[in-house]
Amino acid sequence: MSVIYTRVALIGLGLIAGSMAHAMRRHGLAGEIVGTARSPETRDTAREIGLCDRVTDTAVEAVKGADLIVLAMPVGAMGRVAAEIAPHLAPGATVTDVGSVKGDVIAAVGPHLPAGVHFIPGHPLAGTEHSGPRAGFAELFENRYTLLTPVADSDPAAVMRLRGLWEGMGAIVEEMEPDHHDLVLAVTSHAPHLIAYTMVGVADHLRRVTESEVIKYSAAGFRDFTRIAASDPTMWRDVFLTNKEAVLDILGRFTEELFVLQRAIRMGDGDELHAYFTRTRAIRRGIIEAGQDTDAPDFGRVKTRKDDAGA
Amino acid sequence: MSVIYTRVALIGLGLIAGSMAHAMRRHGLAGEIVGTARSPETRDTAREIGLCDRVTDTAVEAVKGADLIVLAMPVGAMGRVAAEIAPHLAPGATVTDVGSVKGDVIAAVGPHLPAGVHFIPGHPLAGTEHSGPRAGFAELFENRYTLLTPVADSDPAAVMRLRGLWEGMGAIVEEMEPDHHDLVLAVTSHAPHLIAYTMVGVADHLRRVTESEVIKYSAAGFRDFTRIAASDPTMWRDVFLTNKEAVLDILGRFTEELFVLQRAIRMGDGDELHAYFTRTRAIRRGIIEAGQDTDAPDFGRVKTRKDDAGA
Repeated sequence: MSVIYTRVALIGLGLIAGSMAHAMRRHGLAGEIVGTARSPETRDTAREIGLCDRVTDTAVEAVKGADLIVLAMPVGAMGRVAAEIAPHLAPGATVTDVGSVKGDVIAAVGPHLPAGVHFIPGHPLAGTEHSGPRAGFAELFENRYTLLTPVADSDPAAVMRLRGLWEGMGAIVEEMEPDHHDLVLAVTSHAPHLIAYTMVGVADHLRRVTESEVIKYSAAGFRDFTRIAASDPTMWRDVFLTNKEAVLDILGRFTEELFVLQRAIRMGDGDELHAYFTRTRAIRRGIIEAGQDTDAPDFGRVKTRKDDAGA
Repeated sequence: MSVIYTRVALIGLGLIAGSMAHAMRRHGLAGEIVGTARSPETRDTAREIGLCDRVTDTAVEAVKGADLIVLAMPVGAMGRVAAEIAPHLAPGATVTDVGSVKGDVIAAVGPHLPAGVHFIPGHPLAGTEHSGPRAGFAELFENRYTLLTPVADSDPAAVMRLRGLWEGMGAIVEEMEPDHHDLVLAVTSHAPHLIAYTMVGVADHLRRVTESEVIKYSAAGFRDFTRIAASDPTMWRDVFLTNKEAVLDILGRFTEELFVLQRAIRMGDGDELHAYFTRTRAIRRGIIEAGQDTDAPDFGRVKTRKDDAGA
């Protein structure tokens, strides 16, 4: 593929920015990749592993002459960083972000950006439970959705160009209204993460069941929750604080549903439980048919040797 | 390894019994493997794929001359099956089960068994979201715990022999009091499953977010819940109805914790959220160090090509 941006500035060098660096390099999408991070340790690690072509000590240095600036830090810090870099942005540059919340980011970042700079918020729906500059890999975005939420005055040509970058990294790109994005993500990501954190927290607090028992016997189901409950605490704190209304809405619905099932258990209503569990199975099938998860048993964690299977 | 039981009768031919058949065969642990299932389709499939040495049409036929009988159907059906086979059990035979609940199974099965038959309840903490006679594989129990919950008059030699079978199939065997088993499983398995079912149910009921959006964007976290919410509905209905008290206890604790976090979100208490999310990370580390899950990002679902990683 051909170069889409001559200089990309990555502000924040965690899993997402690191994966973008690997992917842009593999597919030849960026002339130069410049990166920076707030913590000196992160910058040192990025230099050590050659994550970017150049690592600068400040965001202001990083954005100089860049035609794409990617805000890739926890969403709660984006407004402050936007204010800091705004006076140093090149005319015609595009500023995007990779935050999991869009409404709050638009409100925090938008007002700082000067006329002549394109602001196109974005969100790659991809990630792992690992974080930091060593966690990235080039395939992270392949066959995953990236949602762009252009604002009212986003330039269509600039949106097309950013779309081209994401598609070049293997993503499926769609556009969405910011508010709808935040509701969709509350359902598909934010509420599930909070519920996973809660379930792991419950296990942590029990005294009659020891922590070592919870750990040893986790393969019975619990361990699935612990993966997403191991995600970056700062990132997730900011997600919940900035998408508060949608998350509280979904959590309210969740509690209602839970009480319905809890009551069915208490009353011994097996038919209701069976019907509920049958419906939820269909959603899993839909996800597998859409290519958004593996059909391999146990996420493919189990390695089977087929040589002596009965068939 | 050498033969431990000369004839094993598997009553029920789903994921667990099927995996036992594969594993016993691979490791030469059983002289003859006889199987049966209530549904004619399941029996036909088992015959077609050669799952057992012999498939009988009734449980009564299957248990004749068997020195090990494995009850491997949903726990709600075990009492009825025990009553049916009891008059046909060989003296000195061992009856075990693989149910996810022990107290209720002991109460339902125990009274039917004649003197001279050893009853040793058991539970392999292993499984996938797939079910049926084609779902089994020989490696299912490797490095996974199997819990035996011997009753007061269980013969120690018979327990040792059953332990040998499970160890021969690769399991780590531990003994536990039945009530403690049911509480541990409520935490590590039953409550997580109900919560996963609930979360998937919430997504299913939303109208402002379409089902196709939930499916498309599920990689953002939601899909992790859908795996265990795709487990067999009958099996899980019975688990919740027979381990009612422990499950309701854990769900009550879960709701309390959820409300604490929900309130922190509503009040904007970022410090509390951050501290909570940091604690839950440690549990994940414990599970990985104990060898009970993979450290590969995203359960290893992502296949990375390391050739051009920066390091």
